[in-house]
Amino acid sequence: MTWWRCSIRRQRSVCAEPPPAVILAAGNGARLGVKMSKPLAPLLGQSLIERSLRTCVTVGVRQFVVVVGQLEEEVRAHLGMLAERLGVSIECVRAERWFLGNGASTLAAANEIGNRSFFLLMADHLLDPEILSNLLVDPPATGEVCLAVDHGGQQVFDLDDATKVRCVNGRLEGIGKDLDEWDGIDTGAFLCTPAIFAALEKAQDAGRYFLSHGIAELASGGLVRPVDVTGYRWLDVDTPEALAEAERRLLASLDKGRQDGFISRWINRPLSTRLSKYLVRTDVTPNQITVSSFLICLAASALLALGGYAAGVVAGVLIVAASVIDGCDGEVARLKAMVTARGAWLDTMLDRYADLAITVAIVTAYAKHFPGALPWLAGMVAVSGFILVSYVTKEFTLRHESAYPNDILDRVKHRDLRLLVLSVGAVTGFPFQALVLTGVFSHALVVSIMVRGWRRSLALTGAPG
Amino acid sequence: MTWWRCSIRRQRSVCAEPPPAVILAAGNGARLGVKMSKPLAPLLGQSLIERSLRTCVTVGVRQFVVVVGQLEEEVRAHLGMLAERLGVSIECVRAERWFLGNGASTLAAANEIGNRSFFLLMADHLLDPEILSNLLVDPPATGEVCLAVDHGGQQVFDLDDATKVRCVNGRLEGIGKDLDEWDGIDTGAFLCTPAIFAALEKAQDAGRYFLSHGIAELASGGLVRPVDVTGYRWLDVDTPEALAEAERRLLASLDKGRQDGFISRWINRPLSTRLSKYLVRTDVTPNQITVSSFLICLAASALLALGGYAAGVVAGVLIVAASVIDGCDGEVARLKAMVTARGAWLDTMLDRYADLAITVAIVTAYAKHFPGALPWLAGMVAVSGFILVSYVTKEFTLRHESAYPNDILDRVKHRDLRLLVLSVGAVTGFPFQALVLTGVFSHALVVSIMVRGWRRSLALTGAPG
Repeated sequence: MTWWRCSIRRQRSVCAEPPPAVILAAGNGARLGVKMSKPLAPLLGQSLIERSLRTCVTVGVRQFVVVVGQLEEEVRAHLGMLAERLGVSIECVRAERWFLGNGASTLAAANEIGNRSFFLLMADHLLDPEILSNLLVDPPATGEVCLAVDHGGQQVFDLDDATKVRCVNGRLEGIGKDLDEWDGIDTGAFLCTPAIFAALEKAQDAGRYFLSHGIAELASGGLVRPVDVTGYRWLDVDTPEALAEAERRLLASLDKGRQDGFISRWINRPLSTRLSKYLVRTDVTPNQITVSSFLICLAASALLALGGYAAGVVAGVLIVAASVIDGCDGEVARLKAMVTARGAWLDTMLDRYADLAITVAIVTAYAKHFPGALPWLAGMVAVSGFILVSYVTKEFTLRHESAYPNDILDRVKHRDLRLLVLSVGAVTGFPFQALVLTGVFSHALVVSIMVRGWRRSLALTGAPG
Repeated sequence: MTWWRCSIRRQRSVCAEPPPAVILAAGNGARLGVKMSKPLAPLLGQSLIERSLRTCVTVGVRQFVVVVGQLEEEVRAHLGMLAERLGVSIECVRAERWFLGNGASTLAAANEIGNRSFFLLMADHLLDPEILSNLLVDPPATGEVCLAVDHGGQQVFDLDDATKVRCVNGRLEGIGKDLDEWDGIDTGAFLCTPAIFAALEKAQDAGRYFLSHGIAELASGGLVRPVDVTGYRWLDVDTPEALAEAERRLLASLDKGRQDGFISRWINRPLSTRLSKYLVRTDVTPNQITVSSFLICLAASALLALGGYAAGVVAGVLIVAASVIDGCDGEVARLKAMVTARGAWLDTMLDRYADLAITVAIVTAYAKHFPGALPWLAGMVAVSGFILVSYVTKEFTLRHESAYPNDILDRVKHRDLRLLVLSVGAVTGFPFQALVLTGVFSHALVVSIMVRGWRRSLALTGAPG
């Protein structure tokens, strides 16, 4: 329902031709308390590594090098399936000495990467895609490495176990779990040049096998640039507690930052988030949810066209159900990092046709008992109003290059309010009256938004025609 | 009809907060053969200086300093009217010694400008707004001046009289009408720092009063940077021949570079350009044309609702007239540099309501003779199809951040084809059949474009939901 903002941001990143990503997935799930390989641990219906891959795909990454070690075959099989599902290329390389430390694992990717720059990420870190976008804004110069750093230390989960960093004058000066003085946390997201490999080899020769040892090596030469990503969500899923926290945070994210209509906020959203929390653990995809909502609307339309009180009550309930479910597609997509332009595209267009079906059904039933032109004229007003109220804000966005503001008009124009009124009408035996009400109201909104757009364009161009 | 591309480009420029513009309007119209002040010479219904101001407004300029000299009162009065009409601030300054040369005129603006950067333009030069946008891309450093240069010398009108320039290694090396070796033409568009004033004073002390003398002064210190604007339209309107050429070029610009539907291209456009060539010389504004087209559609709808053969014929003619006139608003706006976001906004929304009125009228008339639900159902299909076919491409643009491609679907989905079919239907006595045909066809187009959008978003995101 409100996806397009995300999709526009993603597209912009795609244009920048992002680098490949190296994902370290060699560790096991011992600390996490799972018997499987840690990258395969499930979180709200998706493995941790699928989430990592999807996060990268969101900013446009298409090529992956995944370093495997423990339970190699299991991970390889899972990655084979993911490569197909996501339409990306995934090379698996084995880190023979993964157990020594994640620096040793990183080195295993050196041949595959060659002399390209690359994202370096941990399979078990959840990252807001914006963290990767931030790294892309100002990529590392030759010989440098950029590290996403969170300076909001108090909010970091399991601070004791986190890797701290100290930054001075825009350069990393120190890194380690036991730094005495620190001002930020290593989020585990890097944008590297191949210089990291030489640094890791040097550290290894000194018997130091962790990634932070290689980073410290580069930092001593002033070659590590911290990128501030304070405020963006990330989490190192290392323990059962962290896994539970990850689930809690993901679900909590459904409840905020939305531009909902009034009905969504107080009725639909509380119901749909509950349903989404269930759906996200299943294999049901967001697009399947979208289509289900559409089919339920068609069923409600068939009942409405039949007419009669009983059919109206059932239709009313179905309409509310469809309206609630229509909110789940976006929620599940966000929870599973599966937000796509095509999902939003499908959702928007099917909504319009669902509205058309409901309108035609209500008018058909009413016209059986009250012949003449008037019911039909009302239907034509309603159907055009329902489409135009969505049309007018899209037109506004195109003309002004910014989304229509979330003002009172925006909040009452949403489809959820319209469907609720129609549903109440159907249940109480007055579907046609509800249709007339919503139809006239929609046109009033269209005209109000037209006037607003007219005034606003004056302010922008200063050249009245 | 196809304005929004322009409006988006303009908005981007507005964000860059353009500098003020100094416009030299001190000369008289002796060479041009007009008895009035040259900046007031009319070209397709607008004075030359109004065109210069509107060009600047298009890239976001809001503050003007106009240097006046000859026939000062006349020019001041005209500028007062323009300031109000365009909603901009215009300061007039008098160049006491304008007759010495345009360098002397430029110096008169020094006090008003202070230490700001500014556009420096000639009132009698027609410029493609993109030339100003190009100057804004990389503004001059302190002490520098940027000059828009056209390297396509062969296409320049009245080459003998043009000011030539010689560029070496991205710097201007020579400037003057009689340069032996030259590789570009001075288009008369500058983006200056106040350094130009000191240079002009220095030249003046040496008895050299032209702008090119000041530029030469700066160029000798390597302080003039040419900006390549080859290929953009510009014209120095100095003689009656140049004025005629300007008119010819403006009118010719109507015929190219458009994404018309088939009907527009072969029927509407040839008629509307002829009408626009007349309208542009009147005071009729583009928005008045838009509203007229809408009112004609309403009149046609009233006749169609009456029913009967005679009314149908008149309605059919009115629909074609409205369709042709609907093309004139954009044409007149472009000819008069009056393209605005609000004009496009008004045009798009009124088109939708005009279609609604025509559909309701045709169905009402038909249902009188053929009662029952079917005519009305067809009407609902038609009215939703007409809006959705426009909706779906806007949605496409928003989801993919690029306009829907000008493919065969795009060319047959335009309103002009729909109106022509409805008009033919009305004239031949089969308006309802024409409505059903266009309605079904519209939905077929919507579904085709939906499929196309679905496929395309796969290619972009690679993350099927």
